[in-house]
Amino acid sequence: MLELHRRLLPAVIAASAPTPCFLPSRGALRLPRSRPRRLRGKPSSTVRAVAGPGPVVGGAPAPEMAQREVARVLADQAVAWLGPRLLPSAVPADVAEFRSSAGNAVGSLDVRRGAPGSSIDFMLQSSLHCKVPNGAIDITSILIFLNALTDAPHFLLELIQGSPTSIVVILDLLPRKDLALHPDYLQMYYENTQIDQQRGKIEELPQARLYRSPSLFVRSACSPTAVMVSIDCGQGGERAFEEIVRGQLATVTQEVLQIWLDNCADSTADMEETERDCLLKRDRIVRTKSIEVDLTANLPRMFDPDVSNRVITEIRRAFGVQEA
Amino acid sequence: MLELHRRLLPAVIAASAPTPCFLPSRGALRLPRSRPRRLRGKPSSTVRAVAGPGPVVGGAPAPEMAQREVARVLADQAVAWLGPRLLPSAVPADVAEFRSSAGNAVGSLDVRRGAPGSSIDFMLQSSLHCKVPNGAIDITSILIFLNALTDAPHFLLELIQGSPTSIVVILDLLPRKDLALHPDYLQMYYENTQIDQQRGKIEELPQARLYRSPSLFVRSACSPTAVMVSIDCGQGGERAFEEIVRGQLATVTQEVLQIWLDNCADSTADMEETERDCLLKRDRIVRTKSIEVDLTANLPRMFDPDVSNRVITEIRRAFGVQEA
Repeated sequence: MLELHRRLLPAVIAASAPTPCFLPSRGALRLPRSRPRRLRGKPSSTVRAVAGPGPVVGGAPAPEMAQREVARVLADQAVAWLGPRLLPSAVPADVAEFRSSAGNAVGSLDVRRGAPGSSIDFMLQSSLHCKVPNGAIDITSILIFLNALTDAPHFLLELIQGSPTSIVVILDLLPRKDLALHPDYLQMYYENTQIDQQRGKIEELPQARLYRSPSLFVRSACSPTAVMVSIDCGQGGERAFEEIVRGQLATVTQEVLQIWLDNCADSTADMEETERDCLLKRDRIVRTKSIEVDLTANLPRMFDPDVSNRVITEIRRAFGVQEA
Repeated sequence: MLELHRRLLPAVIAASAPTPCFLPSRGALRLPRSRPRRLRGKPSSTVRAVAGPGPVVGGAPAPEMAQREVARVLADQAVAWLGPRLLPSAVPADVAEFRSSAGNAVGSLDVRRGAPGSSIDFMLQSSLHCKVPNGAIDITSILIFLNALTDAPHFLLELIQGSPTSIVVILDLLPRKDLALHPDYLQMYYENTQIDQQRGKIEELPQARLYRSPSLFVRSACSPTAVMVSIDCGQGGERAFEEIVRGQLATVTQEVLQIWLDNCADSTADMEETERDCLLKRDRIVRTKSIEVDLTANLPRMFDPDVSNRVITEIRRAFGVQEA
C-alpha cells in the first residue's frame, strides 16, 4: 500500500491529461441510465447499488465531497441543456461500477452517446475513490466530446483531490484546430467568449498555484485559456477549501460549461474533405495519447487487471480508438 | 510624458509577443556588418556612431545593463556557431539606428539574412531604450528564424525591462507545426532535448512569477516549454537582480540557444508540397500577427511616424510579410 501511495498520487497528478476520464470512482457522479436528468441530492439507483446512501469502501463509508457536488451540478446543467441530444447510457453494469478486490478502490463510469444528427459524440463521466494510507485520492471527470459535424472545442473537466484541503483542477475547452494556424478559430471560441476571464477568477485565489502537467503533450493539447491550477489550503484549511470548491470553483466550472453549451454544443461547420480528415486525425491522436498517458499507466495500479482492462476497453470505445 | 509612461509600459509588457523584435533600441546589441563575430566588450563602430562610448539619450548617458550583456554574449554564441550561414547585415543606416525627435528614445535594428542553401531565413537583433519619467524601459530581442528547407523551430528571446530590478523574459523554440497533431515533432525537439529543464531552472527562482501574455495568440504560438516569466527583485534588489540576470538567466538563455543550434539550425526536412504549404502558411500567420500585435501598436508611441514606419517596413521585409 505504501508503494501504491508513493507511486500513485504523484503518478495520478503527474499524468493528469486533458482528455482522460482516467481513474474513475464511486457512483456519486453517475448519470442515471433511465432518466435524462437526475435531481440534485437524489442518488440514482446505480449509485445506491454500488455504494449505498453511505457508500462503503473497504468496509468504511467514503465521505460525500464538495468536488462531487460540483461535478454533479455541472452534469445536471449539461444534461438539462443537451436533453434529447444525449442517448441513454450504454455502459455494461460491471464497468458502470467497479472495485478493486482489495476493497480499497471503487470507480464508476458512465458514457452517453450523442443522438444521431446531433454534434455530440459522447458525454463521459467518471469518478474514482481510492483509499491510501494517509487518506484517499478522489478524481472526477466530465468530458463532452463533439463529432465531425463541427470543429468546435470539446468540454473537459478533471478534479483530482489528494487531500481534504487540496485539489488539482483542469478545465478547458479543448481546441480541435491548430490555434496558431487558425486565429479566426481562436477569436471565435476563446477571445469572443471572454473565457479567459474565468481562468483569471480561479488563478487570482491566493491558494491557487499554476499546475503544469509534466506531459508536454497534455500542455500542447490544451487551449491557452485552460484552467490548470492546484488549490492548496494547507493543514487546517478545510473550511476555506470547502468555500472555494463550492464557491469560486463551482461558479467558474458552471460558467465555462455554459460558454461551451452556448457556443459549441450545437454548432456545425462546413468543412472540406481534407479539413475534416485533418480534424479527425487530430482528434484521434489527442484521444489516443490521452488514454495512453493516463489510463493504461494508472488504472492497473488501482484495480485488478480484468477490471482495469474492462474499463479501459469501454473508454476506448467511447473515444472511438479501440485497439485493433 | 506621463501619458506615455502610463500607456507604454503596460502596453509594451502586455503586447510582448513571441515573435517580434518590437521596439528596438541602442546599438549595444548590434552585430557589426563587416565581421561575422564581434569580440565581447568591444563596441562596434556602429555603436559608437550612435551613442558613443558613453551613449547619450536626451543628453543623459544611458547605463550599460546586464540584460544587454546577456544578449550580446548570446548573439556572439549564435554568430560564432552559424558562421558563414549568415550574410552581412543588410539594414539601411537610418534603420540600423534611430531615435525619437524628442530625444527620449533610441533604437537599433540589425538583420542578417541566411546564406543561400542554408536553413537560416534571418537573424534579427533589436534593442530599445526609452526614457520615462521614473526611469527607462529597455527591450532587447534576438530572433533566428528558419526557412522552408526545414520545419524545425525558430529561436526567440525577448527581454523587457521596466525597472532596474524587474524584467520579463520570453525565451522559446517557437514551434512551426501543430504539436497536438505531431507528437513526433514534440518528442524530437522538446522532449528529447529535455529543454523543459531549462524552463524549470528559471521558474524555480523565488523572484520569478509566470508571465502570461494577454494575447491569446501569443500564448498559442509558443511551445509548452517556453520560458515566460517576470523576475522581480523588488525595491533595493539591484544586486540580487544583477546576479540572476548574469547568472541563471544568462546560463539558461545560452543553453537553450545551444539546444537550438545543435538540433535546429542545420536541420533539413523532406516535406511534401502540401506539408510545406501548410508550414509556410503557418509561419506567415505567426509573423504577421506578431508584427500586428506588437510593432504597429507600439513603435509609433515611442518614435516619430517616419522613423517607426521605416523600422516596421524593414522588419516586415525580414519577416517576408511586406504589405502590398
